[in-house]
Amino acid sequence: MENRYFSVRADRLRLPDGGIKDPYYVIERTDAAIIFPLTADGEIVLVSQYRPPLEMTELGLPAGLVEEGESPEKAARRELSEETGYTGGEWESLGSVASSPSLKDNWAYLFLARGVEVTTAPDPDDHELMEVIRVPVEELLSLVHSGKIVSSSGVAAIMLALERLRQAP
Amino acid sequence: MENRYFSVRADRLRLPDGGIKDPYYVIERTDAAIIFPLTADGEIVLVSQYRPPLEMTELGLPAGLVEEGESPEKAARRELSEETGYTGGEWESLGSVASSPSLKDNWAYLFLARGVEVTTAPDPDDHELMEVIRVPVEELLSLVHSGKIVSSSGVAAIMLALERLRQAP
Repeated sequence: MENRYFSVRADRLRLPDGGIKDPYYVIERTDAAIIFPLTADGEIVLVSQYRPPLEMTELGLPAGLVEEGESPEKAARRELSEETGYTGGEWESLGSVASSPSLKDNWAYLFLARGVEVTTAPDPDDHELMEVIRVPVEELLSLVHSGKIVSSSGVAAIMLALERLRQAP
Repeated sequence: MENRYFSVRADRLRLPDGGIKDPYYVIERTDAAIIFPLTADGEIVLVSQYRPPLEMTELGLPAGLVEEGESPEKAARRELSEETGYTGGEWESLGSVASSPSLKDNWAYLFLARGVEVTTAPDPDDHELMEVIRVPVEELLSLVHSGKIVSSSGVAAIMLALERLRQAP
């Protein structure tokens, strides 16, 4: 099975104990980039977006797929600009995580961007309906705990960014 | 497409702006439970497991799928016992996260279990080859930062648990 969003591969897997798992399904999907965008006045730029699989509107960090030939940071800067109109700032990597290690082969690259500014109008993809929302960084944890922010990669990025900001404000 | 691990559903999606996305693919998958198991002497019980989609051995929190009719906490206690042989302790919820909000419909329920003890032999599923590893809680962050622990839901659970332990030691 293959479509523009993912493809499914069936492997014949030989396990270290000699057992065979056939088929072992792997969902192949493009890598993603996720941005923790902090403004000079201590706010985080979030996007609110309807998520059909969860049947809910999710509040989350700007994020998107890495395009062919693009570095994760370039994709992150492009997605931040397209989704929110924010650009610039000082960037650093927060590492990478895998959203479904037993099922999917893709990675999410996490970035902290300090000092982003709105310089352009958002230019989302067709039908990518999202609202841009600024939230004081102090309020992020309560949005996680109250279930408004639910993406596991997004929560990982938020918690790693908050830890980084505590270490190196 | 349907198998014992997931099924793929094709929806016709009407968007708030009147646009139509057809097909919108949703991967249906069983919910999961993830446990942050802390022993009385300040160690975390981790499992090391080969992940075919990532072609790497991943170190991570014990976790598994919630079975039909099971509560997330019951599944978490069962998986912890099956994967590691550890049981007991004081349990609290750390909330839930979604590993792929734009693609998958499943949730991971996160638990902090303080004071777990080894009381039985691990009894993993067929071919679920894993090694149990105890790590001092202070070393967890460096395992995340060095890319040894990569699951986004697992990293989210670890960071939320460490935050909880700071607030309520």
